[in-house]
Amino acid sequence: MTEQERNERIQRSRELLRWSGEYYESDQKLLRKQPPLVKEADGGKVLALPKNFEDLPMEHDFVKIINNRRSNRVFTDGDMDLLTLSFLLWAQQGVKGIRGNNYATLRTVPSAGARHPFECYPLILHVSGLKPGLYHYLALTHELELIKEIDPDDPSFADQVVRSVNGQKWVQKANVIFYYSIIPYRGEWRYAFNAHRVMMIDAGHVTENLYLACSALNLGTCAIAAMDTETASGLFSLDGEEEYIFYCAPVGTVSAENEDAEQAFYAFLKK
Amino acid sequence: MTEQERNERIQRSRELLRWSGEYYESDQKLLRKQPPLVKEADGGKVLALPKNFEDLPMEHDFVKIINNRRSNRVFTDGDMDLLTLSFLLWAQQGVKGIRGNNYATLRTVPSAGARHPFECYPLILHVSGLKPGLYHYLALTHELELIKEIDPDDPSFADQVVRSVNGQKWVQKANVIFYYSIIPYRGEWRYAFNAHRVMMIDAGHVTENLYLACSALNLGTCAIAAMDTETASGLFSLDGEEEYIFYCAPVGTVSAENEDAEQAFYAFLKK
Repeated sequence: MTEQERNERIQRSRELLRWSGEYYESDQKLLRKQPPLVKEADGGKVLALPKNFEDLPMEHDFVKIINNRRSNRVFTDGDMDLLTLSFLLWAQQGVKGIRGNNYATLRTVPSAGARHPFECYPLILHVSGLKPGLYHYLALTHELELIKEIDPDDPSFADQVVRSVNGQKWVQKANVIFYYSIIPYRGEWRYAFNAHRVMMIDAGHVTENLYLACSALNLGTCAIAAMDTETASGLFSLDGEEEYIFYCAPVGTVSAENEDAEQAFYAFLKK
Repeated sequence: MTEQERNERIQRSRELLRWSGEYYESDQKLLRKQPPLVKEADGGKVLALPKNFEDLPMEHDFVKIINNRRSNRVFTDGDMDLLTLSFLLWAQQGVKGIRGNNYATLRTVPSAGARHPFECYPLILHVSGLKPGLYHYLALTHELELIKEIDPDDPSFADQVVRSVNGQKWVQKANVIFYYSIIPYRGEWRYAFNAHRVMMIDAGHVTENLYLACSALNLGTCAIAAMDTETASGLFSLDGEEEYIFYCAPVGTVSAENEDAEQAFYAFLKK
């Protein structure tokens, strides 16, 4: 594209940063049916997740948790147990209650108008007690539904995962990759064309809780917004319009010995 | 607007949600000058902020901090001290280091490509040891610059503040209102038309740290994305194009006695 075309695209994209004060009638105001709060289970095997989070060995100095937060892209091959995975899911999207007559979920993260427009789909690569596979987090009941077992060593599957994040191979050493879908209508029902910017802000709430949980548990993560939406959505058979993968976060074990390898990701600065 | 117009706006706004895989040459790639990492002080009185956060009475059980996070809009008239304010600023935007030759700031929150496109402008209403006024957080040095003293009881100023958040009067009882500006070019320099969605995600990182810090300190907050950009930017004499206020978060003291008043904000559900 020409530079002028690029700049026009930038201007159009800038418009979306602003809250529009223009009057609109939302579907909520027009009393149209509210979309479901969550996506239901779809017939797969369902596993209850433990909630004895007090048993997790965790940093308990909140200032340190904040100060130690960082991005990690180099993972060791350490174990992850089910309780740890469970806490990571809870911290990101856990449901603490329901407001009104199924009007909204109250979660560990805030969401504009409590619309919570996301579903979380963990790709389990290496978690003890769980078969590697594509899963769906059932937030209302804090359960995992198995969508499909996978063979992490199958090169064509591994290739699809790497393509889903536009070629970032480091994700393959994660214990789990949290793929997030968005269901845009959940936000649009209330906020129409103002929904999209606030849903992106909401996505940041989710991953920041994940970053801090990783800091508290001495795990590593680095969220990825540069997704190949089509490939990622294909992994979970999502329609790509009314629900699609827009964001993900791989989580793995880390070691201080890998600091040089971590810094190698910034080698471009030496040029 | 007609429903068709509204729906076209919704479709256009949906574009913001997707990472575009189209090839572009960013200004970074074209070797154009990088924008400054932060906005410099502008000649106002500068105050160093304390960093002895270990002295703050703080919840240190991270599971509780996460579980207790909530939105609060009803504030008491309790005190806030400078160390508390200092920690809230640090948790949101604190700079822990510099990467490369002034290439990027490393902060308590992640940002896509470490662009950190925000400035934080606290409106101090009631913090002991600080004159009420409009301030600018100097993140690089963890200092506050006074832009302008204000009289919080001046009705025309109070009116401007309420208009800046589209009429939400509850903000007036906050001890401090953190106004966030965005400088879009900081992100566009690297990501062109893909910048805007990731900058909104970054905004969520910032406020999630604030929510959790408030949970740890038994303070209340509820971030507001429905801003009147023009009025809010006018408070801080920002140009409204290359830098403008897009988001804010009032923080105040809270009491369990106000729970009925908190729930009154959801009275519309009883209809």
